[in-house]
Amino acid sequence: MIRIAIDAMGGDFGPKAIIPALDMVLKGRPEVHFLIYGDEVKIKKYLSRYKNLNRQVTIFHTDKMVQNDDKPSTALRASKGSGMRMAIEAVKNGEAEAVVSAGNTGALMAMAKIVLKTVPGIHRPAIASVMPGIHGDTIMLDLGANVLVDADTLVQFAVLGSVFARANKTRDQQGAQDDKPPSVGLLNIGSEETKGPEHVREAGEILSRIDFPGEYKGFVEGNDITRGTVDVIVSDGYAGNISLKTAEGVGHLVRTYLKESFKSSLLSKIGAFFAYFALRDLRERMDPRRYNGGVFLGLNGVCIKSHGGADALGFSSAVILAVRLARQGYIEQIARDIGHLTDQENLLSEDD
Amino acid sequence: MIRIAIDAMGGDFGPKAIIPALDMVLKGRPEVHFLIYGDEVKIKKYLSRYKNLNRQVTIFHTDKMVQNDDKPSTALRASKGSGMRMAIEAVKNGEAEAVVSAGNTGALMAMAKIVLKTVPGIHRPAIASVMPGIHGDTIMLDLGANVLVDADTLVQFAVLGSVFARANKTRDQQGAQDDKPPSVGLLNIGSEETKGPEHVREAGEILSRIDFPGEYKGFVEGNDITRGTVDVIVSDGYAGNISLKTAEGVGHLVRTYLKESFKSSLLSKIGAFFAYFALRDLRERMDPRRYNGGVFLGLNGVCIKSHGGADALGFSSAVILAVRLARQGYIEQIARDIGHLTDQENLLSEDD
Repeated sequence: MIRIAIDAMGGDFGPKAIIPALDMVLKGRPEVHFLIYGDEVKIKKYLSRYKNLNRQVTIFHTDKMVQNDDKPSTALRASKGSGMRMAIEAVKNGEAEAVVSAGNTGALMAMAKIVLKTVPGIHRPAIASVMPGIHGDTIMLDLGANVLVDADTLVQFAVLGSVFARANKTRDQQGAQDDKPPSVGLLNIGSEETKGPEHVREAGEILSRIDFPGEYKGFVEGNDITRGTVDVIVSDGYAGNISLKTAEGVGHLVRTYLKESFKSSLLSKIGAFFAYFALRDLRERMDPRRYNGGVFLGLNGVCIKSHGGADALGFSSAVILAVRLARQGYIEQIARDIGHLTDQENLLSEDD
Repeated sequence: MIRIAIDAMGGDFGPKAIIPALDMVLKGRPEVHFLIYGDEVKIKKYLSRYKNLNRQVTIFHTDKMVQNDDKPSTALRASKGSGMRMAIEAVKNGEAEAVVSAGNTGALMAMAKIVLKTVPGIHRPAIASVMPGIHGDTIMLDLGANVLVDADTLVQFAVLGSVFARANKTRDQQGAQDDKPPSVGLLNIGSEETKGPEHVREAGEILSRIDFPGEYKGFVEGNDITRGTVDVIVSDGYAGNISLKTAEGVGHLVRTYLKESFKSSLLSKIGAFFAYFALRDLRERMDPRRYNGGVFLGLNGVCIKSHGGADALGFSSAVILAVRLARQGYIEQIARDIGHLTDQENLLSEDD
């Protein structure tokens, strides 16, 4: 049995989107059990429609919830007894293997840091996500948990991302582990060693000489994210967040153009009718809901942030990611690999 | 007459793409005269096909050219007599109002800085470009002439971008100037004042209290670029370049998906046939060639970099941008506005 703690009241839609999402997750994953935190009446209202799901949940009632526009510090102070906090505590206490919330990102990160704590040796947690690419998926981090960071922190992100990439690669294929180390690139503004800001150049220099769970491939540029040049792209949260949001914006622009183009004339409308299957295929491949779910890496527990605006399909992607990671024992792997990194740092500084 | 200096040998295709591009520019702009620098035999080979264009050009022969993979420092040392250098010098000497090159970006920037010099008071030149958006175009800078910069430099970029936005707004409508100040946003990872790296927060604080040719609207995020939230988006070259390249990558991903979707089945192929006009419309709106042309802002002269891989249509967009800016006297405007900014800085520091 895999137990996932769900903050049911977060996000724009709350239980209305979240409960159907859990039912989607259950299909093909009968071993999952959900601990659901939030307003019992609202949760049960939607839950009653899903018989199978009903048997696989435990509801923990609370009236208290973190507001989407609360500052992290305010939310943290008032968080005791909130659904978000209780769901995180379930992971801390070993009652669940992972927590998923669509609520306030800053509050979730602050609470997860306080409750779960970081893996020993980790400087700062990072947010990672899976990005779609022409030649397969790419893991990208940090997406905004931090702003500018130092070179050592970027190196730690490379470790966190590599372990995540390996866990994600195996996906739902239990057992069969791919032992090839994930390829890792540093996000920069050019591929030459002399390019870019100092923290990125220094991290590149360190990654090219240390032993870590990935294979360092040098600098990559913004267009490598969708190209699938490497399995893992490492960046500070400043560049990473701006890049992620830019990608979202371009995706939205294209969807708007697509709709307008197919409505621009009668002929175009007829075209849209005949192109129905091709357009459906395109829409599915471009669907950002398939890539929903930001993973907080570096914490002593699996915590996943769903986009606040996610609908049922979107939220289900985030929960499926949680199930995948809960299976992989990847927290233990991160602890081992960060320990290995710290050993090398000690060796390196002894050399000085 | 507007005279544009053209480095004919730069880019992936050289005169083969550049000469037809100039013919495109001439249509509707009979007042433009081109000074073309490069290998006379190769230039004339393509020029002979365009009778009208032939009457509007002067060719300056040189065998010497900057290679696409030369380091800027190497290119600079060996640049005397190269087509790129001669074209820049034509602007310096008042023989042309603007220069356009599809050659090596680093070399072009280095030469333009040495030959044209920066406008007095400017810390660092920036590269700006026009980006497409749902609600109209957005000017974005810096796109990679710099990496991380200080707050004062970001403030100067806001001035450079505002003057450019005004010149770009008037487009080819000679005379009728839109007097509304362009709206300006700072690219950041959140809209709250407390978010983001120090140099961005400090620049925001300065922009909210000084008088400059734009109207400061606060922080914007990556998805605001295509949303058209503001007329000008200011960032350092690190975040700006990564954002630009990410947008290019997503555009490429979508075009690949689109092609694949419409070839995936017989029905989809029939759909593509009926959807021809809608797809053509979409392709045109998404066409990155329409947005080709990076403007070096802050120099004593108009210098425009075309994408190296630009074809004739792409290169013509860069030249049309050059014609537009050559008309506007925008160098004089920048000098005035940077002077005004420096006066305020002096006043502000006297207040301390």
